[in-house]
Amino acid sequence: MAITNEVKKILDYYESDNPGTKSNLARILMHGKLAGTGKMVILPVDQGFEHGPVCSFASNPHGYDPHYHYKLAIDAGLNAYAAPLGMLEAGAYSFAGAIPTILKVNSSNSLARDKKSPSQAITGSVNDALRLGCSAIGFTIYPGSDSQFEMMGQMREIAEEAKAVGLAVVIWSYPRGGDLSKESETAIDISSYAAHIAALAGAHIIKIKPPKAAILREPERKLYEKNNIPISTLSDRVRHLMQSSFNGRRIVLFSGGDAKGVEGLMEEIHSLYKGGANGSIIGRNTFQRSRDEAMLMLDQIINIYKGNSIKYLCQQKST
Amino acid sequence: MAITNEVKKILDYYESDNPGTKSNLARILMHGKLAGTGKMVILPVDQGFEHGPVCSFASNPHGYDPHYHYKLAIDAGLNAYAAPLGMLEAGAYSFAGAIPTILKVNSSNSLARDKKSPSQAITGSVNDALRLGCSAIGFTIYPGSDSQFEMMGQMREIAEEAKAVGLAVVIWSYPRGGDLSKESETAIDISSYAAHIAALAGAHIIKIKPPKAAILREPERKLYEKNNIPISTLSDRVRHLMQSSFNGRRIVLFSGGDAKGVEGLMEEIHSLYKGGANGSIIGRNTFQRSRDEAMLMLDQIINIYKGNSIKYLCQQKST
Amino acid sequence: MAITNEVKKILDYYESDNPGTKSNLARILMHGKLAGTGKMVILPVDQGFEHGPVCSFASNPHGYDPHYHYKLAIDAGLNAYAAPLGMLEAGAYSFAGAIPTILKVNSSNSLARDKKSPSQAITGSVNDALRLGCSAIGFTIYPGSDSQFEMMGQMREIAEEAKAVGLAVVIWSYPRGGDLSKESETAIDISSYAAHIAALAGAHIIKIKPPKAAILREPERKLYEKNNIPISTLSDRVRHLMQSSFNGRRIVLFSGGDAKGVEGLMEEIHSLYKGGANGSIIGRNTFQRSRDEAMLMLDQIINIYKGNSIKYLCQQKST
Amino acid sequence: MAITNEVKKILDYYESDNPGTKSNLARILMHGKLAGTGKMVILPVDQGFEHGPVCSFASNPHGYDPHYHYKLAIDAGLNAYAAPLGMLEAGAYSFAGAIPTILKVNSSNSLARDKKSPSQAITGSVNDALRLGCSAIGFTIYPGSDSQFEMMGQMREIAEEAKAVGLAVVIWSYPRGGDLSKESETAIDISSYAAHIAALAGAHIIKIKPPKAAILREPERKLYEKNNIPISTLSDRVRHLMQSSFNGRRIVLFSGGDAKGVEGLMEEIHSLYKGGANGSIIGRNTFQRSRDEAMLMLDQIINIYKGNSIKYLCQQKST
Amino acid sequence: MAITNEVKKILDYYESDNPGTKSNLARILMHGKLAGTGKMVILPVDQGFEHGPVCSFASNPHGYDPHYHYKLAIDAGLNAYAAPLGMLEAGAYSFAGAIPTILKVNSSNSLARDKKSPSQAITGSVNDALRLGCSAIGFTIYPGSDSQFEMMGQMREIAEEAKAVGLAVVIWSYPRGGDLSKESETAIDISSYAAHIAALAGAHIIKIKPPKAAILREPERKLYEKNNIPISTLSDRVRHLMQSSFNGRRIVLFSGGDAKGVEGLMEEIHSLYKGGANGSIIGRNTFQRSRDEAMLMLDQIINIYKGNSIKYLCQQKST
Repeated sequence: MAITNEVKKILDYYESDNPGTKSNLARILMHGKLAGTGKMVILPVDQGFEHGPVCSFASNPHGYDPHYHYKLAIDAGLNAYAAPLGMLEAGAYSFAGAIPTILKVNSSNSLARDKKSPSQAITGSVNDALRLGCSAIGFTIYPGSDSQFEMMGQMREIAEEAKAVGLAVVIWSYPRGGDLSKESETAIDISSYAAHIAALAGAHIIKIKPPKAAILREPERKLYEKNNIPISTLSDRVRHLMQSSFNGRRIVLFSGGDAKGVEGLMEEIHSLYKGGANGSIIGRNTFQRSRDEAMLMLDQIINIYKGNSIKYLCQQKST
Repeated sequence: MAITNEVKKILDYYESDNPGTKSNLARILMHGKLAGTGKMVILPVDQGFEHGPVCSFASNPHGYDPHYHYKLAIDAGLNAYAAPLGMLEAGAYSFAGAIPTILKVNSSNSLARDKKSPSQAITGSVNDALRLGCSAIGFTIYPGSDSQFEMMGQMREIAEEAKAVGLAVVIWSYPRGGDLSKESETAIDISSYAAHIAALAGAHIIKIKPPKAAILREPERKLYEKNNIPISTLSDRVRHLMQSSFNGRRIVLFSGGDAKGVEGLMEEIHSLYKGGANGSIIGRNTFQRSRDEAMLMLDQIINIYKGNSIKYLCQQKST
Repeated sequence: MAITNEVKKILDYYESDNPGTKSNLARILMHGKLAGTGKMVILPVDQGFEHGPVCSFASNPHGYDPHYHYKLAIDAGLNAYAAPLGMLEAGAYSFAGAIPTILKVNSSNSLARDKKSPSQAITGSVNDALRLGCSAIGFTIYPGSDSQFEMMGQMREIAEEAKAVGLAVVIWSYPRGGDLSKESETAIDISSYAAHIAALAGAHIIKIKPPKAAILREPERKLYEKNNIPISTLSDRVRHLMQSSFNGRRIVLFSGGDAKGVEGLMEEIHSLYKGGANGSIIGRNTFQRSRDEAMLMLDQIINIYKGNSIKYLCQQKST
Repeated sequence: MAITNEVKKILDYYESDNPGTKSNLARILMHGKLAGTGKMVILPVDQGFEHGPVCSFASNPHGYDPHYHYKLAIDAGLNAYAAPLGMLEAGAYSFAGAIPTILKVNSSNSLARDKKSPSQAITGSVNDALRLGCSAIGFTIYPGSDSQFEMMGQMREIAEEAKAVGLAVVIWSYPRGGDLSKESETAIDISSYAAHIAALAGAHIIKIKPPKAAILREPERKLYEKNNIPISTLSDRVRHLMQSSFNGRRIVLFSGGDAKGVEGLMEEIHSLYKGGANGSIIGRNTFQRSRDEAMLMLDQIINIYKGNSIKYLCQQKST
Repeated sequence: MAITNEVKKILDYYESDNPGTKSNLARILMHGKLAGTGKMVILPVDQGFEHGPVCSFASNPHGYDPHYHYKLAIDAGLNAYAAPLGMLEAGAYSFAGAIPTILKVNSSNSLARDKKSPSQAITGSVNDALRLGCSAIGFTIYPGSDSQFEMMGQMREIAEEAKAVGLAVVIWSYPRGGDLSKESETAIDISSYAAHIAALAGAHIIKIKPPKAAILREPERKLYEKNNIPISTLSDRVRHLMQSSFNGRRIVLFSGGDAKGVEGLMEEIHSLYKGGANGSIIGRNTFQRSRDEAMLMLDQIINIYKGNSIKYLCQQKST
């Protein structure tokens, strides 16, 4: 399938990248059921690192097996599969070339107890990504953490190296630590700041959480009001985040958040879609369901990103 | 246009630099409406990193788009455009060669909470500057911060590398942290110290804030009085800062400060000009206005630096 | 002896490794009395570093001599011998090629007093492992320590280097420090998390302690109950740990723990075997006994891992 | 002028240095009015970095211009000129080859507030020294500071690199920080320790402050008394410091200290000379006077180091 | 003189070393009056760094001159001379090839005030050792210090580099810091642990202090009693330390401790000899005496290590 105009337009946004990186972005954008639409759905399985195997896989023990996730992402027609080093190593040969992969190169875990200066361990490298045939590396930064400058510095080094060898760079930008409360992490002013930082830091793809309508800081509140920036619906807020990400010149993906009911999730995805999001990175909501449920759910999500009506989805569900 | 005598004289001040660096300084000095005058006006757009996208662009949403700033700087005939990595990457191809660019290689953000040891994240490299076709790198140091020695050490490494490959080095020298209060950051004794440190550290171009008449330290106060150093007007103080920057052998630029009325700004620029400043780096005051207003304002600033009378400006405004 | 199907199956799990690393894994799996079974028993002698020479060797002073351990491991038909740098250097020529060796590249000691942020000194390198003819390097991480991210980062660098030159990577994953009490270090939820982290971090072989039935954290407790995960017997728990280690796709070995009676140890090993463990790393229980006792004990352990019945063992003991 | 015997003798003390470093030491020793005497007077202008431009140059504003100092050092017939990076860069072409230069590669400033762990920023490199045509690099260590080991480690790295490329190494050894009071920094036991540390650390030239007769530590006091080490006059103390610096096998220079009257300074220099000092590094006392006064003063100092009588100096003064 | 069987036996213990390192060990073992005996006496002069020049050399001012120590070590027929960088540089040409030298590559000083986390500055490198013609590098570690892991990591890097270029590695293993009191630093359980750590860390030669009969820790005390490990005499304890150092497979040298009477020292040396020590590293006791006294004393020490009777020594003294 030739590169579509939608994808071509997105690739053109990455004005400074070499053909290698553009090719890898294209590989992700041209893979799976959303190939060519400019939208993407990615399966990330770093939950085991972040929260432990029991919290991640107890409800669907197939998930203990790294092959399960590769297969699910492939069979569901997703755009890419993202995971930490060992998870990719364990299926690198069986699924070589079957789906674009993203090596998550840093990871935290829930045993860490620093709340003001949260950070992550570096767990992978650009060389690892190359030898595993990955299309991109993924890195988490915590804007607001007392360790944020160090994390950004690590990210910068790895990103420069990645771009030089033709890989794409995905930044998970999660405000955390310092003076930020749990609630303020998803406040709209903080979320848009996090997205903007990721864009400025040179991300090709930005992953953030769906933002809430709360505003943490007073000066920002006044600006939202004074300039009539609509933030009451999720679609409004997504539109604002896309704008904060170089006015749409960067791919922005949203996390699926806590495991929740399919309908709630579909509504959320639909709002993301309406707001102009490039897609979703859905982890827990996928692998904590049975494979059948997950396949159906992912198909519905994909259909939303294809622009099909909610009605279609309901019909499908009743089939 | 051949290198003018004014520019030649400035280039001669940089006695240790290789032809590559001199060429890049010349590129900046010979570009735009001030080409050849030895003066320069630069557009910096690092505000989004430092204060967030809403604080930066809400009042003029065109600013969310990186192309807007490139275009504004080019159309206004400025000497150069300075921004962090992602901002330059997003327009590197569309505006290749259209205006000299300066890669800001470190950045802070307003989520950081350390007041005694403020620092910044390294967000760009000399290699990035080269691959993006930049003429210079920019680095912020915080003299007085408990992290100042580390920041200066980082700056030194990057500056050595930059000079070796023919780039120019711009130092943002902003006193901050440690025992410094907000007010003392712009005290004349502290400002002149900050400028002098930047010069000693090997800057080609020094960016500081317009200094106030306050004096923080007693020994310095006595010296100002004893030696009759005039500091009552802004022009006096600028003259003193130029002197503190190797007696005029280094290019010193002043920030525009908070967004303010055009007339207040013009008066300030005029004082800078009379004091012998090499020019201004004007961010917020530019992109937080409409494009038309910004274009007019920049033209007026340029005219001041061309040595045209205030009267001319008023005529222009009424046109 | 040709590579057996059991070993072939295990090697196939390591999908991303080069032939060098696979060869070294094969060397370990095809050596000694358990050659070809897919099981392994390894002698580690890092006890002297961790607890001091008197605590380690006073009860059997032959152990002060590095050659003693090499010889014991070889004569007992173990799969490999693991020790810190000096210990291997002292017998590297006498026993060259006689048994696969594992260079332990970091070590702590009982003089260290940090309980919240325990760490280890780096005491060996990949180059050391190569010049000593080792098949693998071993690295300890302390999930939960305030130093855990730094330790994981060190491990990552060494592991990447090791894999590139065809060595295998063994991770000792011992939860410790931070908010973890002594008891919680072996709680089943924490143990499974530690094993999973080691797998995700890219270990070929994971060494953990036999887990207890305790559960440290409430959310995990609910998940164990809700999903009916059996953890009441050691075999149950081992099965759960194997699952948490990529569902059996990674070799998991268990430490022998404190010196104890042979029968207690045999029961424990038998439980490990029944739970699907790949084998044991037995230090103190080996060299703190007389050579004759140790040889008999290791033979019994090996027989358990060969799948022989307990009855056989009793017969053997009474012989 | 051929290398004199006095210089030859000194060069022979540097038994491990390559011809490049010996040549650079010779260049300094064979330059200016003291050429060939084995004595030296050096102009250092790092005062602006350490204390700010106003404190340094307000009393003689010519000093704001980097060329002023180069010219003064050359015209006064000094042996060398020492300054931080920017200061040397600003005159590197105009004065190329006119006088040996020493690049000061680390610097502090008076905005730093750490009293227990004082340190300095690295502000120059060996490569900088080479590209600027310098004969030596200069590095400050603070024996006693809680940062002293880190500073010494930085110094060691730079010194090794400098020696390898034929540069000489000057160490400013200033006890400071930790438990040291301001007074104890120049106590004779601490001064001799500082000089000895610099010698052991591999300095070619050691710069210290003129020591006071005070003794900080009791064990040392007893040793001074028991062994009848004379320390009552400055000459005595200088003799003791030369002894502590490898018994005269290392060049030791003394700082001029606070700006003071010419006669007080001459007396001090005369005492240094009588004690066997190799010379002086005179900063503030030079550039904080008018050029004429400074030229006369430096001529007098040089005459003292030439061994001329005080009487001669008085005659000269009255001329 | 051909390599003796005694030396050959020792060299064979170093099973992993290249011919370069073995040659350098042989050079030390085959030099001086103890050549070929397998015993060695080394002169270390790092006292000036550790305690200052006055404390070190006031009682015998010849010691201020670096040549004095070289000459003393050579004339006394010692095996090697160990000192920090500057000390060796100052005699590297005059005494090139005259005696094996050991470059001490890290050093502390008595101005440092950290009692819990004592450390040392890195003051020399493997490259320094090579250019100075040294046979070995020496490194101090402080087991028990809160900085111990960092120190061991530094040591490891330098040791790997040293071994690769054929140098020998001497580790000064001095328990210090953390929870250790002054007394416990020489407790027998701590001393044996320190020796064992040095051996495990890859030392060719281990330097420790003569241990006291005290036992710091309860579990160890029980083990000493239960296993009837004799520690009442110094010879017993030395025997135990040799055992803890790979059962005699590593060269272990003992420091001379505080300056003391000759007879007390001889008794101590005799006990060391009887316990199987490989020799002594004697600093203060040497250079704080007159040369004649030192020469006689060293000759007596050498005779003890040659196995001559105490009686012989007494005769010699009365001569």
